[in-house]
Amino acid sequence: MTYCLAVKVNRGLVLASDSRTNAGVDHVATYSKMRRYCWPGERVCVLMTSGSLATSQAVLNAINRDLNDPEAEFDLRQGKQLYEVAQYIGKLSQREQQLHAKGMEKSNTSAESNFILGGQINGQATEIFHIYPQGNFISASEDTPYLQIGETKYGKPILDRIIAKSTTLEDAARCALVSLDSTIRSNISVGPPIELAIYENDSLEAPFHNSYSLNSPMYKSTQKQWTDGLRKAFDQLPRFEWEKNQDSLTNK
Amino acid sequence: MTYCLAVKVNRGLVLASDSRTNAGVDHVATYSKMRRYCWPGERVCVLMTSGSLATSQAVLNAINRDLNDPEAEFDLRQGKQLYEVAQYIGKLSQREQQLHAKGMEKSNTSAESNFILGGQINGQATEIFHIYPQGNFISASEDTPYLQIGETKYGKPILDRIIAKSTTLEDAARCALVSLDSTIRSNISVGPPIELAIYENDSLEAPFHNSYSLNSPMYKSTQKQWTDGLRKAFDQLPRFEWEKNQDSLTNK
Repeated sequence: MTYCLAVKVNRGLVLASDSRTNAGVDHVATYSKMRRYCWPGERVCVLMTSGSLATSQAVLNAINRDLNDPEAEFDLRQGKQLYEVAQYIGKLSQREQQLHAKGMEKSNTSAESNFILGGQINGQATEIFHIYPQGNFISASEDTPYLQIGETKYGKPILDRIIAKSTTLEDAARCALVSLDSTIRSNISVGPPIELAIYENDSLEAPFHNSYSLNSPMYKSTQKQWTDGLRKAFDQLPRFEWEKNQDSLTNK
Repeated sequence: MTYCLAVKVNRGLVLASDSRTNAGVDHVATYSKMRRYCWPGERVCVLMTSGSLATSQAVLNAINRDLNDPEAEFDLRQGKQLYEVAQYIGKLSQREQQLHAKGMEKSNTSAESNFILGGQINGQATEIFHIYPQGNFISASEDTPYLQIGETKYGKPILDRIIAKSTTLEDAARCALVSLDSTIRSNISVGPPIELAIYENDSLEAPFHNSYSLNSPMYKSTQKQWTDGLRKAFDQLPRFEWEKNQDSLTNK
């Protein structure tokens, strides 16, 4: 599995992804799931993938092929709106899946991939899209400022408590790290390193990017502080009636 | 959906369940998912269910029928070990599912139910079991002191951080409340009231039991304290390098 997350706040975007892939428990590997494309002053795209690694890689290859082919129908540098780029990725994904549809059906496996695309085109607003395996897509909204793909549930409660449009980029990035870390602790199909990208609206330059291993000082100290802070929060939760009376449960 | 949780710590058991049922979004209702059976001094059983409400109710009806039928093959008061009771519930569940197998197949729906059974029989250890729709079951262990059924993922990270065998019953109960609350916030198919049962080893009497609505003082204050505590923990997370230098992200 995989866990990728994109948050859109007033000041820009935060994107985060884990790096574990597996095809069964005896086929576990580490792959980056985040690609960054940048033409400074012109456009910035960050693409994250979950699902079939073969489909995801084929789509990334097709993106590069089209960028290097002056006769390509469309490529990442075309389109005046980011949703046209999302459409293009949806098409590449569908095309790749259809190529192998018969083979996949026979083996009863799935070639489906999900993508998150985030970025900005000069003169347009910053956007994030979740591109479904079917090729269609949704964007974030005022009320739903984040999108997730893969193992989304473990890391959702902290997002629901912290993230709002007004959250700072740095707080959104910290929240993404915590959301990823909670998922990594609770599900072995999601694993480090955690890649993090932060894009500030209208900068139109390569986003800040870092890859955090379990031993990275920032990741280690975030993990420790969060564990300690949670423990402290937990220890301050209200007592049951019988505890207040220093009574035992059996005499309740 | 549903979320039920059983925790087995050194001092006893904590069991918690939500109360929302749904068959599609236009058929949402409130049902208790926890049944308590107690013969003081003899045995205590707590049963929680998720999945098909029809199957769950049929199993509960069959349990009552057998308890009132002196000629029943087996009932909740029989069996020297709790796993025999788990076997019995698995059998009732399988029998009920098979009755409707043809009809369910035609409508492409599932009659599967999962159960958690917790309790103690005089002279035996306290136990918890997860009974699968197939009728077989697993118990908790030293390393895995909790069992979950239904929408299990949202509420798992906090369990993984807090619960150990040595956790007090009261802390385990608080953790269960937080785990349920996180799930309720992030998934509309899980809803209040939250039922909570606490059983102290060897008491062999009816467990402490309460049902917490959103307006219950204990639930409200737990929610508020937890939200505040998390926010405090979050605000104390380490800063990124550029924040320490009071620099902006773009000059990183």
